[in-house]
Amino acid sequence: MFFRRFASTSTLPPTIRQLLSSPGTAKDIQVNGWVKSIRRQKKVSFAVITDGSSAQGLQAVLSDASLSKQLTNGTSVRLSGRLTESRGPGQDHELQVDSLEVLGECHPETYPIQKQALSTEYLRDNCHLRTRTEAGAAMLRLRHSTSQALHHYFEGQGFCYAHTPIITSNDCEGAGETFRIAPVKGTAPGLTSTEEFFSRPAYLTVSSQLHLEALASAVSRVYTLSPCFRAERSQTSRHLAEFWMLEAEWAFTNRVTDVCDVVEAALKTVLRASNPDLAALWNEGDMTRRKAIEDLSISDARWTQMSYTDAISELETHQAISGEFQYPPAWGNALQSEHERWLAEKLVGGPVFVTDYPAALKPFYMRLNDDGRTVACFDLLVPHVGELAGGSLREERLPMLESSLAAHNLDRDAYQWYLDLRKYGGAPHGGFGMGFERLIGWLSGIENVRECIPMPRWAGRMLL
Amino acid sequence: MFFRRFASTSTLPPTIRQLLSSPGTAKDIQVNGWVKSIRRQKKVSFAVITDGSSAQGLQAVLSDASLSKQLTNGTSVRLSGRLTESRGPGQDHELQVDSLEVLGECHPETYPIQKQALSTEYLRDNCHLRTRTEAGAAMLRLRHSTSQALHHYFEGQGFCYAHTPIITSNDCEGAGETFRIAPVKGTAPGLTSTEEFFSRPAYLTVSSQLHLEALASAVSRVYTLSPCFRAERSQTSRHLAEFWMLEAEWAFTNRVTDVCDVVEAALKTVLRASNPDLAALWNEGDMTRRKAIEDLSISDARWTQMSYTDAISELETHQAISGEFQYPPAWGNALQSEHERWLAEKLVGGPVFVTDYPAALKPFYMRLNDDGRTVACFDLLVPHVGELAGGSLREERLPMLESSLAAHNLDRDAYQWYLDLRKYGGAPHGGFGMGFERLIGWLSGIENVRECIPMPRWAGRMLL
Repeated sequence: MFFRRFASTSTLPPTIRQLLSSPGTAKDIQVNGWVKSIRRQKKVSFAVITDGSSAQGLQAVLSDASLSKQLTNGTSVRLSGRLTESRGPGQDHELQVDSLEVLGECHPETYPIQKQALSTEYLRDNCHLRTRTEAGAAMLRLRHSTSQALHHYFEGQGFCYAHTPIITSNDCEGAGETFRIAPVKGTAPGLTSTEEFFSRPAYLTVSSQLHLEALASAVSRVYTLSPCFRAERSQTSRHLAEFWMLEAEWAFTNRVTDVCDVVEAALKTVLRASNPDLAALWNEGDMTRRKAIEDLSISDARWTQMSYTDAISELETHQAISGEFQYPPAWGNALQSEHERWLAEKLVGGPVFVTDYPAALKPFYMRLNDDGRTVACFDLLVPHVGELAGGSLREERLPMLESSLAAHNLDRDAYQWYLDLRKYGGAPHGGFGMGFERLIGWLSGIENVRECIPMPRWAGRMLL
Repeated sequence: MFFRRFASTSTLPPTIRQLLSSPGTAKDIQVNGWVKSIRRQKKVSFAVITDGSSAQGLQAVLSDASLSKQLTNGTSVRLSGRLTESRGPGQDHELQVDSLEVLGECHPETYPIQKQALSTEYLRDNCHLRTRTEAGAAMLRLRHSTSQALHHYFEGQGFCYAHTPIITSNDCEGAGETFRIAPVKGTAPGLTSTEEFFSRPAYLTVSSQLHLEALASAVSRVYTLSPCFRAERSQTSRHLAEFWMLEAEWAFTNRVTDVCDVVEAALKTVLRASNPDLAALWNEGDMTRRKAIEDLSISDARWTQMSYTDAISELETHQAISGEFQYPPAWGNALQSEHERWLAEKLVGGPVFVTDYPAALKPFYMRLNDDGRTVACFDLLVPHVGELAGGSLREERLPMLESSLAAHNLDRDAYQWYLDLRKYGGAPHGGFGMGFERLIGWLSGIENVRECIPMPRWAGRMLL
């Protein structure tokens, strides 16, 4: 897209990040932010001011003791002064403060975000203030830069960003993990006491895929970054009741390896986007994992693709030697978490696309391979996270899709619209989905997806 | 953000839009798409092929009659040939087809998307195929380019793109227009037969604002483009049960006029992004309205801002002369649709920000002005659409906010987290919300928001 230049009417002053990215040494600078720390010396005080625009913050030098005495952590302030080169270590520029105004006080003793280390549980309980921590703000910025990088990639590849429905009539095959909208209490004339608002049962979407397929059958290439919902009661570090999912679908693709290639290219765009916030997030994390991510971000090597059948064979060989798996691997069985981790962490030592799983293990819409027993699909497994993305070619052959619906005991009528997409100019197509919080966790080393989203929801927990 | 260049591993071939934007005259071109129209002559046939990447399509020249006989509208095909300069009118380049493969047939008589004009209602009933129409595809691309332009604007202004919760404990002040999540049937041990999944009632969000305020109190500038929900039974051309809303919040802003300026700058970025799809959408629309939008997109003039009090005064004067309003305007009363339209269409003849409404007409969180009876807010009114956006400074003064909660009979405990944002380093701040479908309708002249979203939901209607 092309943007014509024009005189902006916006009056927003530069953020601290914008100010420090082309600082000069200007006079009459005005900076807004919150006090992150303050260090008082005899004649001069140093305050670090943050506006959350970057991890770094701005060092403010207060020579007038009367100015600094009002400042405590968390106070919001407006500072005026001159930007000068800094003689101290840790920053290139600093603000010589001429005057300051306290905009909002912050009681130093009752402020919930104290300087000392705060437990993960405590911060979850205070999730309205959690992004005021360094890690919380860095996570928020990482979500921003990651989604921008993904938009950038898909724009370049000619994809259309689309919004698919959140409320849907699809109950996810009745698996019971779907949230349902409660009937509405009737007040209007002619309504019974409880009634479906949409005249039929309504659910929250678990995936945008089927809807994206309809759009891909019109504009070829579509993607979305959309909220998805699973009413799953299990408490794991990898599941949320409400999460965001990147999903893409495109027409005129014939090989699952091509779908894998798009996933790989999108992730490489994300990995190679400069991300100063990762330093703050990895700070206390595992250095080996961080190094592996950094190496991956500068490597041009193609990521490994291997078939499920080959993966099972490798797992069986390893099991015969070591006996280390709790669940013996066998063709036809799902890969267990221990298997996935071994494949990515030990066998490959990096991301691995495992392709062509047995049809019986996968949903009805995946395209049957010529062998008649596997489908043209993949799971992307990455070290420490496990499954980061999954996708497939979609069954575009009408008779095969009808057989598959029957084999999965699904109601043909409910899928008539989906069959129509094949009936009228259906094209070979494929796509994938990737959990956005898992991606954030993989990039940053954050251990639990609950810390990868600003206001997490899981069974029994929904604050705000 | 900065993206390092790297050798892409993606193998996606160019779309028709990409091909035609730097065509050359290459041999061995392969094009995938759907037949949009076909014109058979004695020796040669001309087919227009679209892949949905642009309104234009590609003219394919088939000299071999055996090739063209398989082609009907909607058929998906893969064509191979040479791109040459076109001697015919209407396109610069065309494809001389050497060979073609039919990927998916499309029965010419039963295909629901026939060439003749299809009624709006018919297309709503067939919304899984609706984006295959020219207008449907153009709308989808317009949503894409509009959201990209908005991302572009906010990125430049240092905003962080954030995801706020869809499921929330906020029931929108019990107004009854909120969707509620049904309790989950218990299966796990210890569950009663029906139980709240989140241990408390859960609703679908009607606005991201309060959550964005929490994030703005950490990283200063945030925005989102997020689904919102209203269980509203009224059937109008301006309301959906599920819609997308652009919302932004930022700290350190003191004047409502500054908030208006950001809205204006964001919209000017959208208006000035080149949008070839608008031609397809305005095609049969109102030429006067189209001209007004085009004029607006190249004008540097600041948009009008006027106070509610001045607006009422203008309306009263006009009413005294003309008596044309059904509802007599009076200070303290809400502006009716007829008033809003007169202000934008007749008095101003363009977008107008009406500011500083009476406090009693507005929600509890808007900042009280010094006059003690109005709040620092605005509605942006535009011709033919009415209210396109609304926003305000938010009350950042703790005692005033507490008074306002009490005056609105709201439960203080439910808003404790929101009060905390003021208690600990609260900063003056403001923001706005803009209905994305209304924006699309305003830009393109689409009359009903149901045609501004791919799969619309309203009372009684939810397909797919």
